[in-house]
Amino acid sequence: MIDDLPAGLTARHLANEDHLRVHAVLDTWWGGLKGKAGSAERALLLPRLYFQHFTTTSFLVEHDTGEIAAFLVGFLSPAQPDTAYVHFVGVDPVLHGQGIGSTLYRAFFTLAQSHGRRYVHCITSPENVASRAFHARLGFAASAVQPDYDGPGLDRVAFTIDLSAHPVPIA
Amino acid sequence: MIDDLPAGLTARHLANEDHLRVHAVLDTWWGGLKGKAGSAERALLLPRLYFQHFTTTSFLVEHDTGEIAAFLVGFLSPAQPDTAYVHFVGVDPVLHGQGIGSTLYRAFFTLAQSHGRRYVHCITSPENVASRAFHARLGFAASAVQPDYDGPGLDRVAFTIDLSAHPVPIA
Repeated sequence: MIDDLPAGLTARHLANEDHLRVHAVLDTWWGGLKGKAGSAERALLLPRLYFQHFTTTSFLVEHDTGEIAAFLVGFLSPAQPDTAYVHFVGVDPVLHGQGIGSTLYRAFFTLAQSHGRRYVHCITSPENVASRAFHARLGFAASAVQPDYDGPGLDRVAFTIDLSAHPVPIA
Repeated sequence: MIDDLPAGLTARHLANEDHLRVHAVLDTWWGGLKGKAGSAERALLLPRLYFQHFTTTSFLVEHDTGEIAAFLVGFLSPAQPDTAYVHFVGVDPVLHGQGIGSTLYRAFFTLAQSHGRRYVHCITSPENVASRAFHARLGFAASAVQPDYDGPGLDRVAFTIDLSAHPVPIA
């Protein structure tokens, strides 16, 4: 499904059975960013519905041993026919720097384009400097910090990429 | 868009501009159910993405004065072509007992059926006895309480209705 992953890793679409396995890695992978509130926030952003209804546009990367290495949860916007949305992405920190995150994004870009989507949107917390740098490297344009973007006290930075100006695969 | 609402109320599809207005009513309408954790939980279940990408299958009901009276956030499952999903529904408690909630569900059922969807799924917190009774009255079958359904500590009851066995409009 995704060719250019490091040896020993394979990708497939997300499944219902993956839900609690993904939840089990969130705190470790995010290193307690924003403390207990951050932990609750991440868990509540991944209710089971994503693992039931958005599986065909979401990916899970596993080691040959079955351990989770990375995931991307995204969907095609039903209301905006030119747009796709990446909701949540994680890569095991011990695997950072190997291009797995950008490979997942490229796979999602290809999928989005095959469904006629030109733009991909996503967001991150202002505190997540690694995420902000990562999206800039991928070619996303970033908004200023938007206070209360996702609700009271839930500030976000919003990213957009125009795939027609960034042909996949991106270098 | 929805005909059988009480006088003085009109429905339209949800819009991006409604996001913080809906957040502003959550605590009042849910009466602090499950305390501060419940409040944070409800807010995080309604990130802005629902008000951007799922607007065409979601409804807002307003008074002639512009105040929010009710809302329903739902979508057609991309991965399950026979299924639609109701994610979040609220009705101003001062308007309870007037059939507004069931009217919104029936409107969603009609929309879902027009897109070939036979099943509608949704969930609620076990503590929400009013919601459990409401869904039973509408004809939903309920699961037992499912521990950690939406993540660690996030128990849920899951509801399903087979629209082919409950022709719309439901009495």
